[in-house]
Amino acid sequence: MERNTRSALGQFGLTRDYVTSAAVWEQESTQIFRRHWMCVGRIEELGTNGVHPFTWEGQQLLAVCGDDRHWRVFRNVCRHRGSLLVRPDECGEIGHRLQCPYHAWTYDRQGCLRAAPNMEGVPGFETQDFGLFEIPSASVAGFLWLNFEPTDAAADFLRPVDDVFRAWQVEQLEIAAELRYLVQANWKLLFQNYSECYHCPTVHPALNRLTPYLGSANELMSGPILGGPMQLAAGCGTMSEEGKLVGTPIASLDAAQQRQVSYYTLFPNLFLSVHPDYVLIHRLQRISVRETEVVCQFLFQASDRQRPGFEPGPAVRFWDLTNRQDWEVCERTQLGMEDVGYVPGPYSNLESVVAAFDRYYLESLGRLANEIHARPNARHS
Amino acid sequence: MERNTRSALGQFGLTRDYVTSAAVWEQESTQIFRRHWMCVGRIEELGTNGVHPFTWEGQQLLAVCGDDRHWRVFRNVCRHRGSLLVRPDECGEIGHRLQCPYHAWTYDRQGCLRAAPNMEGVPGFETQDFGLFEIPSASVAGFLWLNFEPTDAAADFLRPVDDVFRAWQVEQLEIAAELRYLVQANWKLLFQNYSECYHCPTVHPALNRLTPYLGSANELMSGPILGGPMQLAAGCGTMSEEGKLVGTPIASLDAAQQRQVSYYTLFPNLFLSVHPDYVLIHRLQRISVRETEVVCQFLFQASDRQRPGFEPGPAVRFWDLTNRQDWEVCERTQLGMEDVGYVPGPYSNLESVVAAFDRYYLESLGRLANEIHARPNARHS
Amino acid sequence: MERNTRSALGQFGLTRDYVTSAAVWEQESTQIFRRHWMCVGRIEELGTNGVHPFTWEGQQLLAVCGDDRHWRVFRNVCRHRGSLLVRPDECGEIGHRLQCPYHAWTYDRQGCLRAAPNMEGVPGFETQDFGLFEIPSASVAGFLWLNFEPTDAAADFLRPVDDVFRAWQVEQLEIAAELRYLVQANWKLLFQNYSECYHCPTVHPALNRLTPYLGSANELMSGPILGGPMQLAAGCGTMSEEGKLVGTPIASLDAAQQRQVSYYTLFPNLFLSVHPDYVLIHRLQRISVRETEVVCQFLFQASDRQRPGFEPGPAVRFWDLTNRQDWEVCERTQLGMEDVGYVPGPYSNLESVVAAFDRYYLESLGRLANEIHARPNARHS
Repeated sequence: MERNTRSALGQFGLTRDYVTSAAVWEQESTQIFRRHWMCVGRIEELGTNGVHPFTWEGQQLLAVCGDDRHWRVFRNVCRHRGSLLVRPDECGEIGHRLQCPYHAWTYDRQGCLRAAPNMEGVPGFETQDFGLFEIPSASVAGFLWLNFEPTDAAADFLRPVDDVFRAWQVEQLEIAAELRYLVQANWKLLFQNYSECYHCPTVHPALNRLTPYLGSANELMSGPILGGPMQLAAGCGTMSEEGKLVGTPIASLDAAQQRQVSYYTLFPNLFLSVHPDYVLIHRLQRISVRETEVVCQFLFQASDRQRPGFEPGPAVRFWDLTNRQDWEVCERTQLGMEDVGYVPGPYSNLESVVAAFDRYYLESLGRLANEIHARPNARHS
Repeated sequence: MERNTRSALGQFGLTRDYVTSAAVWEQESTQIFRRHWMCVGRIEELGTNGVHPFTWEGQQLLAVCGDDRHWRVFRNVCRHRGSLLVRPDECGEIGHRLQCPYHAWTYDRQGCLRAAPNMEGVPGFETQDFGLFEIPSASVAGFLWLNFEPTDAAADFLRPVDDVFRAWQVEQLEIAAELRYLVQANWKLLFQNYSECYHCPTVHPALNRLTPYLGSANELMSGPILGGPMQLAAGCGTMSEEGKLVGTPIASLDAAQQRQVSYYTLFPNLFLSVHPDYVLIHRLQRISVRETEVVCQFLFQASDRQRPGFEPGPAVRFWDLTNRQDWEVCERTQLGMEDVGYVPGPYSNLESVVAAFDRYYLESLGRLANEIHARPNARHS
Repeated sequence: MERNTRSALGQFGLTRDYVTSAAVWEQESTQIFRRHWMCVGRIEELGTNGVHPFTWEGQQLLAVCGDDRHWRVFRNVCRHRGSLLVRPDECGEIGHRLQCPYHAWTYDRQGCLRAAPNMEGVPGFETQDFGLFEIPSASVAGFLWLNFEPTDAAADFLRPVDDVFRAWQVEQLEIAAELRYLVQANWKLLFQNYSECYHCPTVHPALNRLTPYLGSANELMSGPILGGPMQLAAGCGTMSEEGKLVGTPIASLDAAQQRQVSYYTLFPNLFLSVHPDYVLIHRLQRISVRETEVVCQFLFQASDRQRPGFEPGPAVRFWDLTNRQDWEVCERTQLGMEDVGYVPGPYSNLESVVAAFDRYYLESLGRLANEIHARPNARHS
């Protein structure tokens, strides 16, 4: 795809309230974060004893591996008085069944209530009515996904990156390193930042040497999954401190895939960056209107991880530097957009994916028609 | 009273907004915390110079011992420009009269304005119009009580525990030890937790050995004061680390009282736990919708306190352990109830006092009719 | 002017919501802090490289010295994606032009957009439409002033203190020392505190020896600038630890000015205190409804500052003590006024300037008619 076919269609950025307003936050909660498939994490990190308590958008959840080896997600809340069943620091102590520490109500690993002491005398009480509440979930490509109110299957949502998951054998990859960040910026600013390389010459001099910013193309240009490849410069094997390969090239990639890095955003909480020798993911969670938590994981082939002397450091340090450069401009943008005098500016054609993100986002909120036309550019103090 | 006469009448617990909502907090402020008698503290702790500044539900108050040896409660706020009259760290420096440190307006210990420099020329100004605002208060059983808008006398409210105060000679007891906690849970969860021993086998193994949980009975089963006795196991003299007596048995107790511990909740801020040899109180203050401050005091006979070698430690350590076990499940319940998917569960018959607390609470808010019927148990994610 | 011509006209103080309410805060934002001339600081402190980023009422601003040596104030926000242009810790690195660190949009020092890479292809894009937003500002008496929505010139607003600026040669004075405070009180309580010396005998025994409180007079008694002189006691040369002169007397002062200190409040953010040998300013910024930041600067003649052995310490320590005494009573007043039972009290005739401040303040909010009559003095608990 030619660079000059890109266009931001004259769009302007989002207005101030999208990064400051509590009302927008609430609308996102119901329209976006309850109705999309979101990545909880890698199956391999979900606890050796098959129980993984976690918080999600302020909710108390519990991933549990059933007797059928199938992972399910439940509300981590007892059906009796509402006590948390399992705390993050207690995972080691969980037995085969889940017993509430308050009054000893006990659930099996499929979420069914199996014992409720002293409830015999309560008229109409039936244990089958008080199983744990389950959240729809799915295991795809080695990740656990959840969606509170799904309208499609996880596999349908992930269809556009199906070939990527297959070519990079993502299901078999293993976590070799992890970075965590708390960024003082709205989650959308991180999506927008990841969606263009217009900023690369100024913000990422090192990255821009490995993948010059005009060497990008778009492959997925609308909908919940966006992105495309950038070409590696001659002499560069992957994204790393010196541009040298860190892992063994993934054998199933074709020649083109071995000379490029592809970047995808999976709305609303995952970035997927596939390299010739490894896969990088950024998993995002909104913490507040101006704070986002990011977990960044480096997935390598099992054979690399087990190889004596394997050292992911050059990739980790490269991306840690790049991440910090990005968070810095995201945080500056948060501060600037919070200014009461902020007025959105126009996108360049290098920001066509940012514009596509905005459109999909506004559509999800049911606001596209109102917001996308007639951007303000009147002078205003 | 037989255990099997108890019933929670098929009630379910309170819904999520009762432990999260600012609107409920405000309604509690006006309907409950302004209109009930509440325990400020023991008279003996109110300052050696007869002046005790304290905050109450965010209000700045001042207990003052008058020239008539009578304690009164005033707003700790000067009638001129609103300065705080006395700060907590200034009590040692107070003279006979209360002088505002800003412009030297001076009040006597009955709250009357006695001097207001430079106000002579102000038309219509009369010192008698600018005395300190007084809050209704009463001294009963060695405690100071207050009620912003009383509809009955403190003595009427306390009538159900009159015999307890008399039998345990509570007025004469003295503070031998104190514990303080900041619990990350709504105040009502602490009341509910104190109101049942269904949780004792799981949460309090040590306590459950001294007073087995099925050995409880209810004596006060409706209204603002609830509770009743639990039988001490054979060989146990009181609640303490080893179950041995810590103080001298209180001589005025009858044979039954010497073999039991009785637990009472005084809505909305006191727990009263009477033992054969001492009285334990928990004094609660709401700090926020999810935070409660607890002051826990151990009241012993003066003759015990003055006895060489007297050591309250075994009682204090026993209850400190028990308290912390309770706060842990209260905090877990707060977290679980905050989950947007929380749905109240059914009470067992061992939770009849919890159900009675909920009824009195909802009645105080004027919500009983709406809330107590037809609890949800539909499956919900 | 005779002391006994003063009158507070029977006014009472402001009600509780003026120091607690978010709605009042918002109304102040639009009615007061956008529509009055406010002092940003001394020109001499605005950065050696001609660029001074600062926050103002939560807004991100940037003072820039143009090629014409004229200071202007801009929003510190790029017109493209909203990134902050300059961070406080970056001032040393600014070149002649201002380049946004995100996508390299570049502005000249008059705020015009000079370069916007990759924007060529965007239909209708013209650099002249995307200059930095400018905030009206003016340099007067060595200070930089700003006003978001001016209805008069800064010079007109400052007319009442014109003679003071001229007599004290304020434009030529230099900062010899600075103190900073974060006061836990609403900004208006600091204005009210500065506006009367009724509190001096109780709060400031040291100050009251140098300028006895009944020796004050009012000169400016209504409008946005209020205040007047106090007479120095015999044997005192200025306000300082021992009452001795700290700088050389300012030669252009007349005999009366050399025997007094004059105190002016410039609504809504400056106190101006002129002494025989120096000028003291307090610059205020609201931080929240109950927090105010104060920058206090001591301006001396250049010849004093450069004199070997010059020591402003006796003035600095005197005012630091006095300031802290004032913040203490302001903070107590904030706490007392926050009490839900607070009812405003009557002003004495020594508080006529406080009453005048309240009137001007309420007028600015468009509330004068509603609020100033019929103060409550009914008893209330």
